[in-house]
This record gives sequence, C-alpha cells and structure tokens, in this order.
Amino acid sequence: METAILLLSCPDAKGIDARISSFIWQNEGNIVHFDQHVDEEFGRYFARVEWTLEDFRLPREGIREALLPLASELRADWRIHFSSERPRVGIMVSRHLHCLYDLLARWKEGRLRCEIPLIIGDKPDGEGVARMFGIPFHHLPVDLERREEGERRQIELLKREGVELVVLARYGKILSPLFVEEFRNRIISVHPSFLPAFPGKDPFTQAYRRGVKLIGATAHFVSEEVDEGPIIYQDVVRISHKDSPADLVRKSENLEKISLSEAVRLYCERRILVYENKTIVFE
Amino acid sequence: METAILLLSCPDAKGIDARISSFIWQNEGNIVHFDQHVDEEFGRYFARVEWTLEDFRLPREGIREALLPLASELRADWRIHFSSERPRVGIMVSRHLHCLYDLLARWKEGRLRCEIPLIIGDKPDGEGVARMFGIPFHHLPVDLERREEGERRQIELLKREGVELVVLARYGKILSPLFVEEFRNRIISVHPSFLPAFPGKDPFTQAYRRGVKLIGATAHFVSEEVDEGPIIYQDVVRISHKDSPADLVRKSENLEKISLSEAVRLYCERRILVYENKTIVFE
Amino acid sequence: METAILLLSCPDAKGIDARISSFIWQNEGNIVHFDQHVDEEFGRYFARVEWTLEDFRLPREGIREALLPLASELRADWRIHFSSERPRVGIMVSRHLHCLYDLLARWKEGRLRCEIPLIIGDKPDGEGVARMFGIPFHHLPVDLERREEGERRQIELLKREGVELVVLARYGKILSPLFVEEFRNRIISVHPSFLPAFPGKDPFTQAYRRGVKLIGATAHFVSEEVDEGPIIYQDVVRISHKDSPADLVRKSENLEKISLSEAVRLYCERRILVYENKTIVFE
Amino acid sequence: METAILLLSCPDAKGIDARISSFIWQNEGNIVHFDQHVDEEFGRYFARVEWTLEDFRLPREGIREALLPLASELRADWRIHFSSERPRVGIMVSRHLHCLYDLLARWKEGRLRCEIPLIIGDKPDGEGVARMFGIPFHHLPVDLERREEGERRQIELLKREGVELVVLARYGKILSPLFVEEFRNRIISVHPSFLPAFPGKDPFTQAYRRGVKLIGATAHFVSEEVDEGPIIYQDVVRISHKDSPADLVRKSENLEKISLSEAVRLYCERRILVYENKTIVFE
Repeated sequence: METAILLLSCPDAKGIDARISSFIWQNEGNIVHFDQHVDEEFGRYFARVEWTLEDFRLPREGIREALLPLASELRADWRIHFSSERPRVGIMVSRHLHCLYDLLARWKEGRLRCEIPLIIGDKPDGEGVARMFGIPFHHLPVDLERREEGERRQIELLKREGVELVVLARYGKILSPLFVEEFRNRIISVHPSFLPAFPGKDPFTQAYRRGVKLIGATAHFVSEEVDEGPIIYQDVVRISHKDSPADLVRKSENLEKISLSEAVRLYCERRILVYENKTIVFE
Repeated sequence: METAILLLSCPDAKGIDARISSFIWQNEGNIVHFDQHVDEEFGRYFARVEWTLEDFRLPREGIREALLPLASELRADWRIHFSSERPRVGIMVSRHLHCLYDLLARWKEGRLRCEIPLIIGDKPDGEGVARMFGIPFHHLPVDLERREEGERRQIELLKREGVELVVLARYGKILSPLFVEEFRNRIISVHPSFLPAFPGKDPFTQAYRRGVKLIGATAHFVSEEVDEGPIIYQDVVRISHKDSPADLVRKSENLEKISLSEAVRLYCERRILVYENKTIVFE
Repeated sequence: METAILLLSCPDAKGIDARISSFIWQNEGNIVHFDQHVDEEFGRYFARVEWTLEDFRLPREGIREALLPLASELRADWRIHFSSERPRVGIMVSRHLHCLYDLLARWKEGRLRCEIPLIIGDKPDGEGVARMFGIPFHHLPVDLERREEGERRQIELLKREGVELVVLARYGKILSPLFVEEFRNRIISVHPSFLPAFPGKDPFTQAYRRGVKLIGATAHFVSEEVDEGPIIYQDVVRISHKDSPADLVRKSENLEKISLSEAVRLYCERRILVYENKTIVFE
Repeated sequence: METAILLLSCPDAKGIDARISSFIWQNEGNIVHFDQHVDEEFGRYFARVEWTLEDFRLPREGIREALLPLASELRADWRIHFSSERPRVGIMVSRHLHCLYDLLARWKEGRLRCEIPLIIGDKPDGEGVARMFGIPFHHLPVDLERREEGERRQIELLKREGVELVVLARYGKILSPLFVEEFRNRIISVHPSFLPAFPGKDPFTQAYRRGVKLIGATAHFVSEEVDEGPIIYQDVVRISHKDSPADLVRKSENLEKISLSEAVRLYCERRILVYENKTIVFE
C-alpha cells in the first residue's frame, strides 16, 4: 500500500499539527503515522507524517504544489517522499569488509529499501564482495597529495549514477570539505567508538589504554569536522580486562555493522531530520 | 507551566488527528506533545496529547464538557488530566524492601509526581522504612483462609485515603478477583523475571535451573490471571554460570526497583493506555 | 603461537587447581588462561586451561597420555584441543538466510576459526549464498512422513565430510532423537525468542500478542526436547507498541545472527562445557 | 563460611598458578574461586584467590607470614583479606542525594558488606537522610580559597573513624592531590557521563548539545586528574531527541546510583586490582 511521507521543520507556533493533519484529511488521506517534536531550546517544530495514497484526492505529482502555500506560510524546510521510491545508494569501502557484507546481505534479503548501483573502493579489497552480490565495483584510489583530483572522479561517478546517499562502510580516507558540501547530510559513516569518546585514529588502542568497561560504535552524518557530524545511531557492548585490543576489534565489528545498517535503513525509510548538528529520528 | 493531557482511544478513522488538534488550536492551546498510534490488528486509534493552558480559552473545568461531542462522535474511551493534579498512590509491601526504598527515595527527591498517603504491609517489615519517610504504615495481615475479609479492610482503607493507584512493591500475596476488579488497570506490580518466562513462584530457582544467560524483571498491571496482566516495562541484565541463585536475587533487585519505579512514573505522568491486555506507552 | 586447551569437569575436591597447574608447570608450559568454576549445587569442578606449547616438554601427541593418570584419579570428563586444529562445521539452512550470510561473512573475514566443508538445505533457497562463498551446497529435502530416511542421508553426508559441529542457521525442521544422539552437544541452533519464553512455532506472533517490551534470541545446543537444550548465548532488544509483527521479525534478525555466530565462535574456541542441561561458558 | 581472599599482582612467569594453588592445597584449604589474568602488554600476572578457612591448617593471623616467602620470590604486590572483615566506608555528599539513598538502602538490606561510621557533607542537604538511617552526619564546608584547611578536617575525621574507603556520592568539590594521596585507590566517585566523553562540568548539557543517542555513568577511583582515574564500572541508557536536559538528568540518576553502588560492592568484596590507571575486576 503506497504512502506519502512528509518531513518538515519550521519555527514553532500554535496550530501546526492541526493545519498539517487537516490538509491531509480534507484530501481524504488516512494518516498512518504522525510523529512530531518541539525543540524548546530552538523553538522549532519537527514532524514526520505518513499517509496512505489509496483514496487520496490529489495525484502524487500534485501534492508538492498543493502543500506549497501552507509550507511557505509556516516558513518550513520540507520534503515529500513516496514509499514506492527507493533512494539510490553508493557505498564506499577500503579494507574492512564486515559492514559491506552486512549492508549487502540485508539489501539482498529485502531489508533495505534502496538501489545500490555501485561500490567504490580506494583499495581493491572490496571487489570480491561486490562481485558476489553482482554490483559494479570501481577501484578509485585517492592519492592524499592529490585528494581533490581523486575525489572529483568519485563524485562524478556517484552523480552519474544518480546517487542520493553515500555510505562509508569503514571507508579509510577523510573526505574533503568539497565532497561533504556536495552531499550535505547525505553521507553516512560509522566510527568504531562511542563518540565523542575516542575520535580519530585507532579508537581501539585509545579505549584499551583508558580501560573503559564498555565500547561503542557511532553512525553519523559526515560533516567538515572529522567525527563531529550529527549522530544517528549508537550502540555499546560490555568489555572487561580480559579483552585484548584484538578482542575489542572483534566485538566492535558487531556494533559497527548494526549501527551503520540501522542508520541507512532509517534514512531510506525517511525517518531522519537534521537540525543544527543534531538528528531527530522518528522511529 | 500547567498542561492538559488527553488520553484517548477509539476505532480508527480518517481525520482523528485533524479533529483533535483543531479543537485545541481553535481554543488557542499550544500543543507540546502529540503522540498517536494506530493498531492495525485491532483497527484502533490511540493518542496522548498535551497542551499548555496558559492562553487556552476554556477554563479547566469546562474542557471535559467541550470535548464531549467530539469524543462521543469518535466513540472514544478517554480521560483528561492536568499536570498540576497528583495521583494518590497507595503502596503495599511484604518482606523485601528494596522497591519500597527506591519508590520513596525518588518521591522524596521530587522524581515521582504523586502523593503517597499510606503504606500497607501484610507483614510488619516495612514499618521502619515508612516511618523514616514519614508515611503512615498499616499492618493488615491477610489470612489466606479468610482472604476476602482481609482484603476488604485493605480496600476500604485505600478508598478512604482516595487512592487512585495501588503499587505492589514486591507484595507477597496474590490479590483476589474482587480486589483486581476494584482497581482495574490501577494496580502495578513487579515480577522478578522476564515474563512470560518463569511466572509464579521462585523465578530465581527456575532461571538458575534453566541456565539462562540473562535475567529480567517485569512491571505490569495486575489482572485476574497471575503474572498475565498488561506489561508496562521490562529490563534485563546479563548473568553467567558464576552467578549462584543468591547472585541472581541480588542482580534482580536492581532490575525490579528500576522497572517498578519507572512504571509508576509513566502512570503518574499519564503516559499509559491499556487495550486488550496490552499497553501503549507514550514516552 | 600455538596453545593447548584443556576442558575438564570432575567431582569437586581439594587440590584440583594445584594438580592441574603443577602438571603444566613441571612440563615447562606457560599458562595463558586458567578459568575454573565450582558448581556448589552439583559439587562439581569445571576448568578451561590454556597454555603455550613453545617450550612445553611434551610433544602434542604425548599430552593426552601424560594427563591420563591425573584425569582418571579425578574421575574427570575431559578433552584436550590445540589452537591450530580447526573444527569442521556443517551448516543446515532452510528459507531465512540472514544467519547463513552472517556466519559465512565472518568465516571469510577470518573471525571464525573453523572449516566449512558443506551446507545442507532442506529447501533450495541457500544455494545461491553457498555458491557466492564457494561452499558445496546439498539440497536434501526431508519428507516429514519419512523423516528418518531423509535425516539418514544428511547424517551420512555430514559424517563423510568429517563434520564435528552442526549449525542450524534457522533450519526449519525439528531433528529426530536419532539425529540429536548422533551429534550430542554438537548441534547449535538459534531460536527467535528469549527462551524459555515463546518456544516452538511463531514466537513473533506470541510476543506481539503478549505485549512484551523486549524481544530476544537464544542460541543453544539441540536436545530431544524442542527449544529445551543447554543455552549458550542470549540477547535482547527493546521494542514498543509501535513495532508490528513485521518489525519484530526485522529486529529479531540482528539478535539471531549475532547470537548464533557468537555461540559458534565460543564453540570453535573451545570455551563451552556442558553439564546437566546447562553450559559453562569461559569467555 | 569464612574465606580468605588473596589479591596479588606480579611480573608474569611460569608456574605462578601452580605455586599459589599448591600453597593452599598443602595447607588443606579448599579453593572456591581462582581468577587470574595475564596482561600481555605489561607482562604482568594478576590473581584473586578465595578459599575456605574451615579445615585450613594455618590460623588467620599466620597466613600472611606463611605467604611472605612466596610473595617475595614472585616480587608481588599483594594483600590478604577475610570475608568476616568489613571495610569501614566514609561517604561524602553534597546536594544530590539519590546515590546516598541507594547506598544506604542496600547497606541496610544487607547487600553491602561494610560498616558506614560517618557521612560528611560540604552542604547540609544530606543530614536528613543520614539521620533516617542512624548514621552520624558531619557538615564540613570547604571554602575553595582555603581548601586544604577544610580537607584536613575531613581527612582527620575519616582517619579517626578508621575509614578505609571514601565514597563520593555525587560530592560536588574536586579533591586536592593531598586528599587523593592520603587515600590512593581508596576513593570511589561517580561521574554522570560515559567517560572519557563529557568530563568535568555539566555533562548533561554537553551530551544534549552533542546529540548523543546514549548517555552513561562511570564509577572510578579518584586520581589527581579530574575524571581520569581508573574506571571500575560503566553503564548506559538509550535516549532520543525527545529527552530534554531535565530528562537526561533523571535518566542518568538510575545509572549513577547503580554504577556507584556496584563499584562499592566490588571493592567491599575485594574484587578490584588497580595497575597503571586501569582496573582488573574479578566478578
């Protein structure tokens, strides 16, 4: 059953819930999910509204225009999605393949509603996995001294394939501001720590040295500052003095793959809004 | 800032969100939280709506009447609450006092918005704790052969004190259907297991014998069937072969007290709806 | 660095730790891990001892014989393993493939120290995945009315391939006592519930109907009684009224694959002892 | 049944397990728990050994001397404890009382095996709770400009009462190096964050601003560097965009009280060894 999904944020005011839900009711839509949130610090309203299109009076292509006057009056940032549309996702990978395996297995089993037209590797390691799942693999190494040139080829390829979301499945290179700007709030990465603890290089050694009793993983949107972007999902697992740095790596892989796949799923189901370096995730 | 809270459930239909939110908007209320849920199996709609009364046009005592036509048209079960009203809670206790301590310490620290006019014990053990916190304690033993007589005195006392919610803080006796009927969906208990696993007597020995790797606790409304009422909150903790039955008891106490206190908080904040032996908890 | 691993259980007595560790010391072994446990209910001692073979005076093939007198005096059940030996694992699968993917991806990435000589399916669904990972797939359907005949072919094949451990990766058929007896405490399965809650058929519907607030998965050894064998690993995740039965299935898949893969890893690293329908897991 | 508990760490070598366990066996002790750990980075051995004194040939007061030669040969740091001895614990508190309530309720219910001869507050807020539980309360404010003078009175009082362990139950002042030195690895505090994330002031605002999806608490030994001492116990809870800073405070209180009480229990049961700013916790 097809649904429309409205993602909207605007300055808070009286009557927003009423006006949005009345718009849908007047057009004979049946609301399946109405999730809203008011951030009191920012005085801002956020909503995700999903309704069935079965008896809806407006045709799909007319909804956007019909919503324009209301949205403009509310001074809203907004997007409308349809459950039948699947975002095109490009995956980038380096040497560690557990996240790639997990994403592709879920996708193959119908658990991620997206298209995956390509996988890009700055190392050749991911090629075998890509071939197993029948997805084109592009080995595009990025020379740190000529990063922009390498990235330009990656961006070009991603755009040519109509990629909406870029997923860094333990991709090893830091992206330039140019790349980030090109896919603002549309690049999801996973960091093997409970951010903001242990950002940057070698979080396992950092965690081992500090003697923490839990380790974590963090899926987040990529911003210009490394490991500082809006957090989407985090998970942790208990460890003890018995765990060597190698054990931490192994335990972390479970967290990384589940956090990243979960974040990608939430994006594909249009459940994430970003505002001021934070996410509102309507689960 | 005072708020009104509407808890409502009704057969699902188009426009319910719009009609409720429009009612509030037309009367100049500012919605702080709008949580709704449609249960597709039952075709039923559930909502918790909270709005500020500051500029609301209707006086508190007029809201109920003003809502009547809409509620009746929706064939709704509904209640209206106000954040300034604090439910009166009666606690019943036997020998294990950790849940009692936890409830009273939270209450004393302002974390449970309720009144606690009395504590009833079928054993005298809770008296010292009650006195510490300055709450009247009533030792009302219940003789199993004359249970109804004993319970009648308990019910009478609870009603005389205007008690809305009865909390069984590891109370050791099973309540009769008479008692349950008197406080339908207004008795919260905690069972030291992850229900429906290990109901009834001695869940620790059951768990130890079965060799489970996690133990749990379950806070639930009390119904006629023992440990079968609607579940409000559950929590678990990892155990290992090293844990003796006594260790399970100790580890469980953390789960029990947090599950019970959390369930009572959710009730007092008017976040729980019950339907067909299940809860909808709007957190 | 190669190690020897002793798994031992015997009636409890004074001096067992001393005698085992002295045996290793006298032969110049360096103990890396010494884990022991005394079950007071059964009066039984359990140990897992791991030591390096680098300077060990006894040759690998002589260790068993050298330990015999001590083991016999302690009336011990015991086995000796070597880190360089990899158990041969046969996987059985039906329609749900997420656990199969997870096992094979870990194995391919070097996270499961075992050989996987074959995959058996009673349905053809797993064949594509098996081929992706280059493992022989055998489609051996089991007709419920002639179950023993079907199982005999499966057992024959598993034995011909020298399989030590059978892993049921969401295999859909119940094994006969004959099969269980053939691989006593060497068949690991995963059940999509927090056992002993919701055993048997359709645990998701059971969980949804009961309105639990957490769901789980249980990896266990298979015994004659369905879902009653010794538990190895359990995990849970929080759910809410928002989760439909389909959401429970999706959330459960994460738990199932991690619980099963973790249990298989623990087995392959020789960390599990079984006694009286319970496991001692030395992590 | 009384037991002796040996806590020992020394440079790693062959035969340590054998020599310790043989010492106990030769004296007819029955080992109940033997936990050891080898830290490969430091090349160091750690053990906690607990045995019954029932038939032990050595009198309690002779054990220490009898162990001396072995301990000195191993160049060990070591202590011997007896299950019948209860450490004397001094609690320090400021304004937030939830941890104090939790510690005292557990202690009263027999879940913390220690004596609590006094509670010190730099604010008067804890006095009522101390009185409820019948424990002497000392209001000793510390003027930041004359911190050493204030602390000297606190230390004097703690020593006069024979306090072994100091517990900071959300005590609001930073201790001077003088105080820390006086109770090296014998001061346990709890910080309301998942350290090393959000150290120092106002971790709730930090967490809210960063938009994390889990918050935590950390019980640790106090060292000269604020929030940098050896970590004993950590716990986390899931949060969402719906949680205001006030909700974070409330949710954190559960974590704080359980983490702190758990750490104090582990200390009192002689389960913690400290080495190089990390803890080995034998659970």
